[in-house]
Amino acid sequence: MKVNAAGRWVPDEINNHPIIPYQGVGKHIPRGRKAAPPVVSCANYPTDGDKVIPTLRQALKLAGLRDGMTISTHHHFRDGDKLTNQLFDTIADMGVKDIRWFPSASFPCHAPIIKHLESGVVHHIEGSMNGPLGEFCTRGKMKGQGVLRSHGGRYRAVQDGEVHIDIAVIAAPTADPFGNANALYGKSACGSLMFALADSQYADKVIVVTDNLVPFPCIPWQIQGNYVDYVVVMDEIGDPSKIISGTTKVTRSPARLLIAELTARFIKETGIMKDGFSFQAGAGGTSLAFVVYLKRMMQEAGVKAGWVRGGSTKYLVELLEKGLTGAILDGQTFDLDGVRSMRDNPNHVWTSPFTSYSYHGKGHFASMVDVVVLGATEVDTNFNANVVTHSDGVLLHGIGGWQDCLFSKCTILAVPSFRGRIPIIVDRVTTLCGPGELIDVVVTERGIAINPRREDLLEAVRGSSLPIRPIEEIKEEVEKICGGPPVPPKVDKNRVVAAVQWVDGTVIDVVKMKID
Amino acid sequence: MKVNAAGRWVPDEINNHPIIPYQGVGKHIPRGRKAAPPVVSCANYPTDGDKVIPTLRQALKLAGLRDGMTISTHHHFRDGDKLTNQLFDTIADMGVKDIRWFPSASFPCHAPIIKHLESGVVHHIEGSMNGPLGEFCTRGKMKGQGVLRSHGGRYRAVQDGEVHIDIAVIAAPTADPFGNANALYGKSACGSLMFALADSQYADKVIVVTDNLVPFPCIPWQIQGNYVDYVVVMDEIGDPSKIISGTTKVTRSPARLLIAELTARFIKETGIMKDGFSFQAGAGGTSLAFVVYLKRMMQEAGVKAGWVRGGSTKYLVELLEKGLTGAILDGQTFDLDGVRSMRDNPNHVWTSPFTSYSYHGKGHFASMVDVVVLGATEVDTNFNANVVTHSDGVLLHGIGGWQDCLFSKCTILAVPSFRGRIPIIVDRVTTLCGPGELIDVVVTERGIAINPRREDLLEAVRGSSLPIRPIEEIKEEVEKICGGPPVPPKVDKNRVVAAVQWVDGTVIDVVKMKID
Repeated sequence: MKVNAAGRWVPDEINNHPIIPYQGVGKHIPRGRKAAPPVVSCANYPTDGDKVIPTLRQALKLAGLRDGMTISTHHHFRDGDKLTNQLFDTIADMGVKDIRWFPSASFPCHAPIIKHLESGVVHHIEGSMNGPLGEFCTRGKMKGQGVLRSHGGRYRAVQDGEVHIDIAVIAAPTADPFGNANALYGKSACGSLMFALADSQYADKVIVVTDNLVPFPCIPWQIQGNYVDYVVVMDEIGDPSKIISGTTKVTRSPARLLIAELTARFIKETGIMKDGFSFQAGAGGTSLAFVVYLKRMMQEAGVKAGWVRGGSTKYLVELLEKGLTGAILDGQTFDLDGVRSMRDNPNHVWTSPFTSYSYHGKGHFASMVDVVVLGATEVDTNFNANVVTHSDGVLLHGIGGWQDCLFSKCTILAVPSFRGRIPIIVDRVTTLCGPGELIDVVVTERGIAINPRREDLLEAVRGSSLPIRPIEEIKEEVEKICGGPPVPPKVDKNRVVAAVQWVDGTVIDVVKMKID
Repeated sequence: MKVNAAGRWVPDEINNHPIIPYQGVGKHIPRGRKAAPPVVSCANYPTDGDKVIPTLRQALKLAGLRDGMTISTHHHFRDGDKLTNQLFDTIADMGVKDIRWFPSASFPCHAPIIKHLESGVVHHIEGSMNGPLGEFCTRGKMKGQGVLRSHGGRYRAVQDGEVHIDIAVIAAPTADPFGNANALYGKSACGSLMFALADSQYADKVIVVTDNLVPFPCIPWQIQGNYVDYVVVMDEIGDPSKIISGTTKVTRSPARLLIAELTARFIKETGIMKDGFSFQAGAGGTSLAFVVYLKRMMQEAGVKAGWVRGGSTKYLVELLEKGLTGAILDGQTFDLDGVRSMRDNPNHVWTSPFTSYSYHGKGHFASMVDVVVLGATEVDTNFNANVVTHSDGVLLHGIGGWQDCLFSKCTILAVPSFRGRIPIIVDRVTTLCGPGELIDVVVTERGIAINPRREDLLEAVRGSSLPIRPIEEIKEEVEKICGGPPVPPKVDKNRVVAAVQWVDGTVIDVVKMKID
């Protein structure tokens, strides 16, 4: 074990591979070259472009599936994914073991994978574990260790060769026999496929699975058939109504509505809200309410955004359709209005984790965003934050694009001051996901705390009616209400069950096995 | 020197690098991995995304320009390029020597580069040399040897690491400060930028030069800013009216109109012209006339194409707008109607040499095209063809996508039987560019010759009124008219001035120094 630059103990190895401890923001400068996939030849592919294989099983066999391989999937269907469970059932049925599953994220619908983790079909998961899989991991039941990466970190890991994907399986709502694919058309249309971009570019073998095979050419192609080996047709790959996942409804909680309103007012009163500005907000209930408030303030002030970043919802789509933003640059659609707009509006552009988030590129979109509004499970008095576990130490959430978004010019965490009588503001976050130097503002229903590093923001709100307060003061107030700080979880300090990577691939913290 | 599988002598080395002799179609199976560019970090790029540098000279300096580097440019402006000459004047002014210029093609407007070839600023050119540069090369005046690749071959060479680009300079009709760029908007709008795709993906440093800087985000981005290091603004980068280059007007020659009509009739009478079929035709006068005839036949028969491939012109755009094709998959726009359509019509899709042509991918579009109509400078009685030199041995034309297109299900060369009293059908082509096994039909004003390998096509025209004739018979007739076969050029057999690569990177033939 070593102490990293954030003061967290990290092990020497994860899954028997040496790790690099977190060095600080922008401190770890990579050397080396990108992953180099094998050169292939058209001589070994059908000249008529027809790559359709009758079954997924046959495609996996042709792809050379064997023990110990890394299999990737994407999460554009979120909790409506109907392919992945079938995929691992098939792999189990083929007698294959010790797979590293490398999803761009996993959801409660993937709970059936637990039996494959128990039986040894799946060795471990690298990727977000939302819900039951995270709980399973936290209890030390997974054979290997989890590795959590942001969306940008996942692209980076594949690009840099840190994770070699043997077989990528891409669920595609529309595809042609050549493998060109999109998620804009078909009964399963869910918007974008770009979380599978790295997989298509760098995996040795790429299988596209679709429930809507169309004649060549599938236009537009979000995934290029020139990267695809096999195409498989299935009855149903996903339920796009579940991309909403229950998190994309505007909150009705008065406290959270207040947080949303304060956040919008902060952006207005600091002057960030001005013609041509840009923002990003998540898809949680508070973030959506924030968009509604901000929209009203923009309309009142006659201000138009230059561009906004999605995860898109109908609220962002409204901004675009009313001319309140020039464009939506969208990583994933969170509702069917988002899907429709991405399909029909040329200024609703699908983006990839490469363009938006990857830290190992020549810049990324995230750092150009004027203001981003994010959630967190905990934040400490140094503005360090947690997004993967709660104070009970249970891994329940993925990082998503959260870490990547911290590079915005102004990062705001819009959070309730407590949840279920557990304070959110703490002395030290249970799991460190984002360094305080990148987090500028914490907005709670009890006031707004500005990171002392941001003297410019403190200056900008001087004299305003906003409830600006030191973060320590809010913390003390909440602790009085809740009866003290959260009780730390009981963990086995020697059992690291998951590593949390920083955007550059270094390890910023770990999750330990919970024993109570 | 060795004899390759096409019976042509090829040297052991070109520019002091060992070459692989041509092995036959689909015979050379690559081993190894793709080129792996250095991993970079956002920490070394401006977080506000502003990569604008005041001058091209400063950008070149920042990019580390030095003697012996490889500099790439693209040819989407064709003969209207106004950047490249300034680029090499700047490089000369900086005192740098021995540059390998790696354009996607060069044109007569680049004749001023000759002075830089003479002074040693440019060591040699790898890429098409249309006109004066080709003549210069043929006369043995270039210090290094030329290397000619098809569009697909060029992408492949960069992807495979055969050509390492140190600095890519991309002329972009519209760009934002981050480097996102397209050729759809701005006073210099010329359609697509995709010939520069490989350059952006694989070059160490990428400079985007624009005469229309727009605020982020430049939508759509054909070139992604995440690959771009520097952006430079100039007054004028190109004249899009010259993308026509004089070759994109329908022929008025009665003989060529006859060739065009025979070609269209052949496609109709063989049954290739049926609902959902696909075709590609070049931008020469005969090809355009062919499109006009084919369109009429499609309308008369009530047949609609599934898709067509461009080089787009107003004739293809008309097909799309009249519903006679479902889509145009377009490599480059050859006129301003093409630019407009690509900008405004979602079914007019820009494609890249990767998707359309690269032989080292998991298939390519070219092999899915039902019928392609191409030109040639010479074709022999075994259907081998030449497209880079005429019978006088002077290198005057690039390969373009010609070799890549030979993989179509039916390849037709639509050529006059003689030009300037020099027969086109010969015993042995002066320079071999395409193997006869991939060339199915030769259409001349004196009749149509079908490759005996294509028994299916011979069967399909049996009983038709088409003037089907053996190729030898046409050849003899033409030789009588012209007074005999072409006189072979006088060359120095020991002086190879340029290599012609096959799509897989092997050397299919060479051009020798002309001495008369």
